[in-house]
Amino acid sequence: MSNNLADRLSERIKETRAPIVVGLDPRLNQIPLVYREGCDQSFAGAAEAIVRFNRAVIDAACELVPAVKPQIAFYEQFGHEGIRVFEETVAYAKEKGLIVIADAKRNDIGSTARAYATAYLSDIDVFGKKLPSPYAADFLTVSPYEGAEGIEPFFGTARDTNKGVFVLVKTSNPGSLMLQTARCDNSKTVAVTLAELIDKQADDTVGECGYSAIGAVVGATYPQEALTLRAAMPRSWLLVPGYGAQGANGADIVASFGADGLGAVVNSSRGIIFAYEKETDATIDDAAYKTSVRKAIEAMREDIYEALKQNLPGLAY
Amino acid sequence: MSNNLADRLSERIKETRAPIVVGLDPRLNQIPLVYREGCDQSFAGAAEAIVRFNRAVIDAACELVPAVKPQIAFYEQFGHEGIRVFEETVAYAKEKGLIVIADAKRNDIGSTARAYATAYLSDIDVFGKKLPSPYAADFLTVSPYEGAEGIEPFFGTARDTNKGVFVLVKTSNPGSLMLQTARCDNSKTVAVTLAELIDKQADDTVGECGYSAIGAVVGATYPQEALTLRAAMPRSWLLVPGYGAQGANGADIVASFGADGLGAVVNSSRGIIFAYEKETDATIDDAAYKTSVRKAIEAMREDIYEALKQNLPGLAY
Repeated sequence: MSNNLADRLSERIKETRAPIVVGLDPRLNQIPLVYREGCDQSFAGAAEAIVRFNRAVIDAACELVPAVKPQIAFYEQFGHEGIRVFEETVAYAKEKGLIVIADAKRNDIGSTARAYATAYLSDIDVFGKKLPSPYAADFLTVSPYEGAEGIEPFFGTARDTNKGVFVLVKTSNPGSLMLQTARCDNSKTVAVTLAELIDKQADDTVGECGYSAIGAVVGATYPQEALTLRAAMPRSWLLVPGYGAQGANGADIVASFGADGLGAVVNSSRGIIFAYEKETDATIDDAAYKTSVRKAIEAMREDIYEALKQNLPGLAY
Repeated sequence: MSNNLADRLSERIKETRAPIVVGLDPRLNQIPLVYREGCDQSFAGAAEAIVRFNRAVIDAACELVPAVKPQIAFYEQFGHEGIRVFEETVAYAKEKGLIVIADAKRNDIGSTARAYATAYLSDIDVFGKKLPSPYAADFLTVSPYEGAEGIEPFFGTARDTNKGVFVLVKTSNPGSLMLQTARCDNSKTVAVTLAELIDKQADDTVGECGYSAIGAVVGATYPQEALTLRAAMPRSWLLVPGYGAQGANGADIVASFGADGLGAVVNSSRGIIFAYEKETDATIDDAAYKTSVRKAIEAMREDIYEALKQNLPGLAY
């Protein structure tokens, strides 16, 4: 297997036939009771429930999908105890062969941006000794309000370390249009202008699979925009939110893929990790919970794979 | 003293005559040796040096300025040990009477945005028990790429808890122009459109001082833009980066203030906490280090206060 991150993602998608990312958003009040047993009403108690729950999701999902995406807000809200189990979650997912996307939407300029990039994607210098990143994710999501100086430090680090970045280009919410389709001096939209900056990164980072790990977030809820942005970044991996709970279906997400059915991974969080709530309640046991995760992934895979097969004659898997 | 956060900030500025925020960006390799003694090359060692250093800065600064602004990237890079001392830093600063601005530039939509807002500005629900926020900052910085749905959850929480938010509107870097001066459908710039959204928040959150704690970040490096944005948000507190290390001086920052010399706080990080490097090296002792911090604050206060006095006949302090 290639060591290139973009290629690893591609190969895992071909193996699983699932261009799917499972979002690890452990909302405390939706975690089944079996994982909360003995956890007290403290940040440490919350953290313990989260790590048990995430291990169950990862165990159920690791053979079926290429990647998971912990959303750090749901860890960070419990302070350093939450961050500790964010670290443990990333480590456990990698141990199980999963690619990990840290969904942190970090952003800043200059040396502050480099500090974030280093924290998530590189080794950290502590008094002259290089220590491995505490988070050690494969990909990091980045928010681009600061413009080029806000995203380039992340690109630089990702290049140096064979890691990846997904820059928010088009988010899945209606209010995103206000800012993301505003017109820059070049008369192009903000989203397209950013897409062109990202596309340049592919010049010398594209893998054998034809895509670069320096990519973008493009929501599934605006398929017409997704077509335009896919065309502007034909060689970049896209992370696609908005499927399921946010309203997009298999047909909507075809626009985000390349002609080979690669180049995009579709995220679902609630639709997978809390699928059990449609059938039963929080008293569900461990085995039944894991079955619910696998079933939800399989249904999503079917939905997406059918849509790709029907629309992409060049599908590579 | 009023309990309203906007008024507390105003009163502290009048008392200190220093509309100044000290940025707590503890770059490890610039921390004087006296604070690193016995700290090993681990994340815990880094964290220990940071908390000692921050206590020294806070002890030196707490009577001279109203507020400090820890930049979380410089803590987060050391994993949960770093986050632990971020929490300790906020707590110590508040104990010393300082207002704390958590510079985290968090952003997301919906329930994820609410999770961030709660984490920094409110109580957290853990299995039915309300625990105080682990960070318990007064203000949080927020990045607005997602548009209205990305900032409103932060406004809502800040209103409910008498806390504050500074939304990035105009950052201090040249590349910020690409996106921040793009034209929205209303033919106004992105920055002005956001400023108008923020200004609406003042309708019912403005304090007796005439300003609201739901405000904006407006860089000092573009005084003309700052004038426009000040006019678009006449009732909002502004956080002003770009002074000192980034090139703006006292005269440049007048544009960010209201006619009374309130409504803005100017940040300096390196220019204060690493001012000692202009005179000596990392062997500086504790007393001399604290003197260097106080001197740098006094020089900055002089520079800003003189500029305000010369330009604002209605200066309120």
